[in-house]
Amino acid sequence: MKGIVFIMDGLGDRPLKELNNQTPLQAANTPNLDKMAKKGINGIMDSIKPGIRPGSDTAHISILGYDPNIVYTGRGPFEACGVGIDIFPGDIAFRCNFSTVNDEFIVTDRRAGRIRDNTSSIISKLNEMKIEEYEDIEIVFKESTGHRAVLVLRGEGLSDKVSDADPKIEGKPPKIVVAKDDSAEAKKTADLLNKIVKKSYELIKNHPINLNRVEKNEPPANIIIPRGAGAVPDVEPLNSKYSLNSACIAETGLIMGIARFAGMEIIEVDGATGGVDTNLDNIVDTIMDNVKNSDYDFFLVNIDGADEAGHDGNYKEKLEFIEKVDDIVVSKLLELKDTIIILTADHSTPISVMDHSADPVPIMINGSDIRVDGVNKFNEIDATKGGLLRIRGSDVMDIILDLMGKSPKFGA
Amino acid sequence: MKGIVFIMDGLGDRPLKELNNQTPLQAANTPNLDKMAKKGINGIMDSIKPGIRPGSDTAHISILGYDPNIVYTGRGPFEACGVGIDIFPGDIAFRCNFSTVNDEFIVTDRRAGRIRDNTSSIISKLNEMKIEEYEDIEIVFKESTGHRAVLVLRGEGLSDKVSDADPKIEGKPPKIVVAKDDSAEAKKTADLLNKIVKKSYELIKNHPINLNRVEKNEPPANIIIPRGAGAVPDVEPLNSKYSLNSACIAETGLIMGIARFAGMEIIEVDGATGGVDTNLDNIVDTIMDNVKNSDYDFFLVNIDGADEAGHDGNYKEKLEFIEKVDDIVVSKLLELKDTIIILTADHSTPISVMDHSADPVPIMINGSDIRVDGVNKFNEIDATKGGLLRIRGSDVMDIILDLMGKSPKFGA
Repeated sequence: MKGIVFIMDGLGDRPLKELNNQTPLQAANTPNLDKMAKKGINGIMDSIKPGIRPGSDTAHISILGYDPNIVYTGRGPFEACGVGIDIFPGDIAFRCNFSTVNDEFIVTDRRAGRIRDNTSSIISKLNEMKIEEYEDIEIVFKESTGHRAVLVLRGEGLSDKVSDADPKIEGKPPKIVVAKDDSAEAKKTADLLNKIVKKSYELIKNHPINLNRVEKNEPPANIIIPRGAGAVPDVEPLNSKYSLNSACIAETGLIMGIARFAGMEIIEVDGATGGVDTNLDNIVDTIMDNVKNSDYDFFLVNIDGADEAGHDGNYKEKLEFIEKVDDIVVSKLLELKDTIIILTADHSTPISVMDHSADPVPIMINGSDIRVDGVNKFNEIDATKGGLLRIRGSDVMDIILDLMGKSPKFGA
Repeated sequence: MKGIVFIMDGLGDRPLKELNNQTPLQAANTPNLDKMAKKGINGIMDSIKPGIRPGSDTAHISILGYDPNIVYTGRGPFEACGVGIDIFPGDIAFRCNFSTVNDEFIVTDRRAGRIRDNTSSIISKLNEMKIEEYEDIEIVFKESTGHRAVLVLRGEGLSDKVSDADPKIEGKPPKIVVAKDDSAEAKKTADLLNKIVKKSYELIKNHPINLNRVEKNEPPANIIIPRGAGAVPDVEPLNSKYSLNSACIAETGLIMGIARFAGMEIIEVDGATGGVDTNLDNIVDTIMDNVKNSDYDFFLVNIDGADEAGHDGNYKEKLEFIEKVDDIVVSKLLELKDTIIILTADHSTPISVMDHSADPVPIMINGSDIRVDGVNKFNEIDATKGGLLRIRGSDVMDIILDLMGKSPKFGA
């Protein structure tokens, strides 16, 4: 028996006047999702708890069975996972921007002219960095997309209780990082970070890429500015926690980062853009191939387009994307045998809000021996009549494991 | 966008034979509440958790987003807030009775003949109190209604782990207060309290008010007897916790005390009695005026009559009061624009129980973009068919904040 948790990112919505007071999911023509609802058990889910407005990261952390209130110390560690740095409990990770400072050390462009190319070569130079007083601390940089990068500090006596170096506006120097508590660890980390920021300028201001940018009148990526400190928590990998052999099929670095963080394997999909233009054929082929032919027994799948359309406030795009997923992907999922499928969302991204909201999301479970509940449409409203009633993200792994016959008994 | 949490105290009930097996809320004619149900999303709520029989205080604490298991150390601090004493974390607060003792120091009347007038002048005398060995401890008395008063102790090394001085029955001397644990703080506080009880008798036995009462053959209020010790917890005020500018419109000292405790402003209403005879016109005018014209963006409203009728076991009074609230108050609430209204109760006060019960209460949410669920009556039974399903008191603030667009995102 295999298991799939299939997340349509940002799927949930609120009624829209333009759709005759229906949500995009209600208004969309989704024969396959509805068939799944009819064959399965339905309900609504709060990925964290009622009223809490989740990020995609905290929602997925919760759905994978980890407590985001404990595990989510900051964005840094998940960004680090997302760009593929191997991180270890106790590491302190930061999001960074390549920025531009002038000779007076004033930030003139927080995003270094939105530099897109060749940051990996600048990063190579940064990775030569050693800070004299802190030679025992390992300093690891890695480029992300565009002007973004990640910094990981590894060694004894560090803390994530430090402020950001990012001044947030241009025309100011990088902020002096300060300790957020009285610990020696926080003071040490703050001092180290201030030295890293200075040192980064020394190391890369005359990097060939930057000299070239200056020549072309583009802002050089001549300094690195960290923010969003987070200590890497000590979590049990998903596979050992639940005795699974798990893999993640996702489109965005954020979700892949969460999956890597949980120790899952990442299966990449050609043409997966994370937008409404993503290659759904490739995604569903990858799912079907791996469920049928690989040794993985558990899959986290995330398709991001509905969230993107929600953030853009584009109800037509959201509705059409839902119909495409229904047609191309869900139609195939219905063919799977010996598989428990939980299809849900991580959060709502209502068109009217253009951001995540705390509205619960519909959830349905398909598979053999399911207690079918008579709900025959998959949407936010009909789901409330279903047999699952209202559950939480933190229930999902336990439920799917039980239905897969892989759940340990608690007691005798 | 403004928000109102509107509590009909003790509204929930159980089916009554006299009402053809309907609850008073079911049997009442409530076109406006039903219109709200039809326009909104409905459900049931356990203000603390299923099966826990809440007080109005603990229920409101939970609904305001504080954990009563942590915050509710005893009745004292909330009574102190209710009578308007400014309390601070670490203060130890007590409910007190004015009582009557005879020359042998035996309590002959625990309520001093239910004295109603002039207790403030006796309190003034009590506030001169100094206890020799504890001159660093500030001792603050304040009168409440009737024979009731409040005592607050402020200073270093105090504890709320002390027993009551109240002997509970007449014919006995005040109980010697003892420490409930081995701490020096509890022993010190117990010793101090015993001295305060004795000293109170010395200070007020010959107070003119008391000499006058003795002359008129009324029991003098010649001693003060504390009970219900509670340490004032360190809580974040509601306004900073949720970035709100909040106010409370309530009828009873208990609810006003909770609101003051949460740092809310109190808006007083002329003619609000807390009974079924309360001036509902003034209450609704106060609500409407403040929602429309004040800078407050969040209101806690409590109307107490249904609870009173429940305690009295008077189903007709409860039903009629519900109809009056529907007619006078809810009809107007329906006119409010750009306002999220959560209408619910703090607990059930079933006619057949004549006290609070743990039966969940109906809850409904109105406002723009709400996921309307097809429920078209507001009562304990229809509410269970609604889209909210079953939530908790501790979800209420998070949910209303999200719908008001004031919720921070947890994660990215």
